[in-house]
Amino acid sequence: MPVLTRTLTVETRGHDDMINLTDQVGQVVASGDIKEGIVTVFVPGSTASITTIEYEPGLQQDLPRALERLAPSDASYEHDLKWGDGNGMSHVRAATMGPDIVVPFKEKSLLLGTWQQIVIVDFDVRPRRREVIVQVLGF
Amino acid sequence: MPVLTRTLTVETRGHDDMINLTDQVGQVVASGDIKEGIVTVFVPGSTASITTIEYEPGLQQDLPRALERLAPSDASYEHDLKWGDGNGMSHVRAATMGPDIVVPFKEKSLLLGTWQQIVIVDFDVRPRRREVIVQVLGF
Amino acid sequence: MPVLTRTLTVETRGHDDMINLTDQVGQVVASGDIKEGIVTVFVPGSTASITTIEYEPGLQQDLPRALERLAPSDASYEHDLKWGDGNGMSHVRAATMGPDIVVPFKEKSLLLGTWQQIVIVDFDVRPRRREVIVQVLGF
Repeated sequence: MPVLTRTLTVETRGHDDMINLTDQVGQVVASGDIKEGIVTVFVPGSTASITTIEYEPGLQQDLPRALERLAPSDASYEHDLKWGDGNGMSHVRAATMGPDIVVPFKEKSLLLGTWQQIVIVDFDVRPRRREVIVQVLGF
Repeated sequence: MPVLTRTLTVETRGHDDMINLTDQVGQVVASGDIKEGIVTVFVPGSTASITTIEYEPGLQQDLPRALERLAPSDASYEHDLKWGDGNGMSHVRAATMGPDIVVPFKEKSLLLGTWQQIVIVDFDVRPRRREVIVQVLGF
Repeated sequence: MPVLTRTLTVETRGHDDMINLTDQVGQVVASGDIKEGIVTVFVPGSTASITTIEYEPGLQQDLPRALERLAPSDASYEHDLKWGDGNGMSHVRAATMGPDIVVPFKEKSLLLGTWQQIVIVDFDVRPRRREVIVQVLGF
């Protein structure tokens, strides 16, 4: 069966919390019969993103600081004026970075760089329980 | 046949116009024989992007305002000095956000969040007729 | 064999150097037996990105100028304070733009726009030899 779809459950603290998913994604890839192909990592929801980064405490502060320049937390958002949930900036940051990443693998091994990790960044303004889709496609 | 390629045609107003493609993408996925896999949504062209967002009028203003901080409409662009088409900022915004999105599906249903929609954002400075590629791959 | 994985080697100058990969990616797609599907272009490493853009000298200056607003080269980065390699801004830019692009093709031809090119942008602060994964998946 050349497609395999799994769901990870991740507890986040919100507020740009970044969580390393690399080991769990690698385990899904290793668990199936597919030797070569892509794994799609996708977060359902519009206030979180999936990307790759060197997962270390410094960058966990630097990335949010940069996104603060793009979508400041103290700016006024039409989304918040209308819906009152106070997470307009979260939606904007997530739409800019995107909900998906596609990583190729070979011999069931992710073709990542040495310090490159797959992460979810949760931009929402409160703790969230997130489901993350990990789908393996190949042969 | 485990791959299905369709083209949507979309009329946009340019100027960060955002159009919801979710229903049309879902119909392409539902129309074929492929039960589980990915759909790639891709815009040919270098002044528009595909992403996901909660599609509501507030965010349709908030996202452009944030991108205005990244690539201001009143800045000077080398692209415009050279080519005179006045859409340097459109190219920069599109390259940053990217032309593609990959969404997994299962049982012919997109694995999106409840309010998460697939959209095209057209950054060009005039109305455009856009073709959007929707390609389903799986089994 | 419906999956084909190749590695390109690219020499960059770093400092937002942008290199056009379109011809090489097109050649990989044309070289195999797969007629219709996706090509994933992925850079292992956390200080470079893959995107599409009109590849011309003006935009090669405009994109870095915009990213300078997001992640200024003269800002203070926790990553640099901790590791001293001076490329905190490179990591932030790469994580925002992402390491991957997925482009659909049909009849072994990439479905790109006329002036839309696939590029690597190397945000690191020194010349780098980069490997870029090009993986074709389809039927």
